Amino acid sequence: MRVELLTIGAELLLGYTVDTNAAFMARSLSEIGVVVVRHDTVGDDPELIARAMLDGLDRTGAVITSGGLGPTADDRTRDGLAAAFGRELLTDPEALAQVERRFRLFGREMPRINVVQALVPRGARVLENRFGSAPALWLEDERGRWVITLPGVPSEMRGLLTETVIPILRSRESAPVVVTSRTLRTTGIGESALAELLGADGGSSVAGLPLAYLPGWEGVDLRVTAAEMPAAEAERHLDEAARRLRDRAGKYIYGEGSADLAAVVIDLCRERSLTIATAESCTGGLLGARITAVPGSSDVYPGGVVAYSNPVKESLLGVPTELLASRGGGAVSEEVARAMAAGVRERLGANIGIGITGIAGPGGGSPEKPVGTVWMAVQMGDEVRTFGRVYVGDRGEVRARSAQSALETLRQLLIVSS
Amino acid sequence: MRVELLTIGAELLLGYTVDTNAAFMARSLSEIGVVVVRHDTVGDDPELIARAMLDGLDRTGAVITSGGLGPTADDRTRDGLAAAFGRELLTDPEALAQVERRFRLFGREMPRINVVQALVPRGARVLENRFGSAPALWLEDERGRWVITLPGVPSEMRGLLTETVIPILRSRESAPVVVTSRTLRTTGIGESALAELLGADGGSSVAGLPLAYLPGWEGVDLRVTAAEMPAAEAERHLDEAARRLRDRAGKYIYGEGSADLAAVVIDLCRERSLTIATAESCTGGLLGARITAVPGSSDVYPGGVVAYSNPVKESLLGVPTELLASRGGGAVSEEVARAMAAGVRERLGANIGIGITGIAGPGGGSPEKPVGTVWMAVQMGDEVRTFGRVYVGDRGEVRARSAQSALETLRQLLIVSS
Repeated sequence: MRVELLTIGAELLLGYTVDTNAAFMARSLSEIGVVVVRHDTVGDDPELIARAMLDGLDRTGAVITSGGLGPTADDRTRDGLAAAFGRELLTDPEALAQVERRFRLFGREMPRINVVQALVPRGARVLENRFGSAPALWLEDERGRWVITLPGVPSEMRGLLTETVIPILRSRESAPVVVTSRTLRTTGIGESALAELLGADGGSSVAGLPLAYLPGWEGVDLRVTAAEMPAAEAERHLDEAARRLRDRAGKYIYGEGSADLAAVVIDLCRERSLTIATAESCTGGLLGARITAVPGSSDVYPGGVVAYSNPVKESLLGVPTELLASRGGGAVSEEVARAMAAGVRERLGANIGIGITGIAGPGGGSPEKPVGTVWMAVQMGDEVRTFGRVYVGDRGEVRARSAQSALETLRQLLIVSS
Repeated sequence: MRVELLTIGAELLLGYTVDTNAAFMARSLSEIGVVVVRHDTVGDDPELIARAMLDGLDRTGAVITSGGLGPTADDRTRDGLAAAFGRELLTDPEALAQVERRFRLFGREMPRINVVQALVPRGARVLENRFGSAPALWLEDERGRWVITLPGVPSEMRGLLTETVIPILRSRESAPVVVTSRTLRTTGIGESALAELLGADGGSSVAGLPLAYLPGWEGVDLRVTAAEMPAAEAERHLDEAARRLRDRAGKYIYGEGSADLAAVVIDLCRERSLTIATAESCTGGLLGARITAVPGSSDVYPGGVVAYSNPVKESLLGVPTELLASRGGGAVSEEVARAMAAGVRERLGANIGIGITGIAGPGGGSPEKPVGTVWMAVQMGDEVRTFGRVYVGDRGEVRARSAQSALETLRQLLIVSS
């Protein structure tokens, strides 16, 4: 099956918004073997929307749109759809009931303005939106050409695409699932060091497949791609490639695909009934936020302390005053990280304590301790691991990399001690 | 001037890459008054590339592309450009010298494969690329319609656009019209309610300028745009529009442009020498992370407690056991949020305490307390404000919206008490 994507909204053409919806739609559709042959973006103009829909229908017969289904005057996708198919726009009782239900769910009366969200071109199918107020629409002509309109709010688009549109598309075609690439996620090693580890040829291929290095603040992702071959053969090649990468760089690989290091660490702890408590200074709650972003993290995470000021490090974590004084090493030091980890572990009665202290910048650096200097410590039982590093990047990056490194320090400790 | 953008590459249509180039180009062009009327994406196929270029030329007469100028077999933009204009592709000595120079700069011999980067359609102007090996091209026909091809590597595209293309476009327009816009950031009110508040016409314009509603988890941004008028006049209109929006919806407006609510609240506290301590359950550190993301937040933020489990709510915050028991209202209740705020304020010796407790999902909901139920409390001196809400969205959204609401609850308290 071949489809085109159409994303709608002035904010996209003004560059205020990066079009992450298009990438999500493309990836989700590609995964089930649907080929996205083109993507267009137009503004909030019903004529231009209709014209773009018709062009897409002429080329491929199938268009999925995102955006322009809200209740305000600049939401014009309904009008564009009606114009493209030459159909009248009518208030649909089912759609109206959905919008009203949505507001009632949150104990509110539907504002009058939202009535327009129940306008539907004659003959269109209304797809219920469990994630927001705008119903999605599916309109098909007598020649079997169709347009699906999805909302532009990312969570609504994602929910509707995954739960409703993809099952419908699957049922319409026995499309073979084609897996063309595999991603192994590494952290704690740089791109060049990884490339040297992976092969004399600069590590540009593995098992005959091209290898890409995708660096980010979480680490470097390794992506192997198998193109232009049947699905079964691609799987075999990708398995072999993944095996070779694990042989060479296994220590640094924490997962595949879109694996999250926090989720990996939580699983390792849950298997062994271990609990984690966090004591954060420069990350200010970011590590706790990463851990609690994972559903079910309450099994292993009772909580933590954000000890941003020195008095809080003393009163809530029991870090000795002498250590915090500059002659004792100062707040950003290996010793303070250790004392934070030990203090939070003891006070929360957890098996594992993690401490992080550092200088996220832009201010606060010195020649001996430049901006980006971070110390972290992990204590499990009597065992303590510490890790110090000067991170490159702005405040946000230093903090994000610190939280990731703390999780990786714990992962390494758990793996070795297993 | 009106232009269209064309981004080229299979990775975009597979969704592996989010198209940040399109957003950067759109924003940079908008800033100098060039109107981007459309953006298309096609794969690495010279026929489709040529077709898309011709469609764009027919509609607006000006197309800027990105991608497909590399040395490998899947880089086909040069062929597409030649086909669209019916010109021959020739090796251009100037372009070849540029590519060779680029490799020499890094002490390397030019690989033979890179010779294709010097292929240029007859009559095209070669734009030097100081940021990489692929020269950009500018081809104009006898009717004054033109295509500029830029590389797809973001740093190369950005460098060429900023240093070369934008100065050329500026010089071509005699009386540059400026498109300027202003964004007012609101939170704590939905899109529909805001539109009703802003006018009987659905709030689609203000002071004669079009008004756009941009909803996100932080709230709804209001953007007013002044197009096709001289800069001074645009400023006057925007000032008037902003004044009217503030008259009607001022209570909900926390800043302009890309203002961050956490930074706004920190400034308000700093002015009055007030300190904030946080007690977080469902947000798990996210509120602390938002506050400490702001440079200089240590002036007002000593820290907080992440009390994810009930025992930590008791031991570190002093929340009474009876309240946490289900007969007392349970951990997710107005009373517990109050007790958390009071406890963290007292134990950290801060002026203001914030407590948040809720059910972020996907599990843990019940008919009486569905997923998304969140209670928050802010205590300043003897004054306490509480706020309860059932948020829509997935786990990430519920948490992000909760942190934002807690900050807004505090902002409202600070504004009223000032």
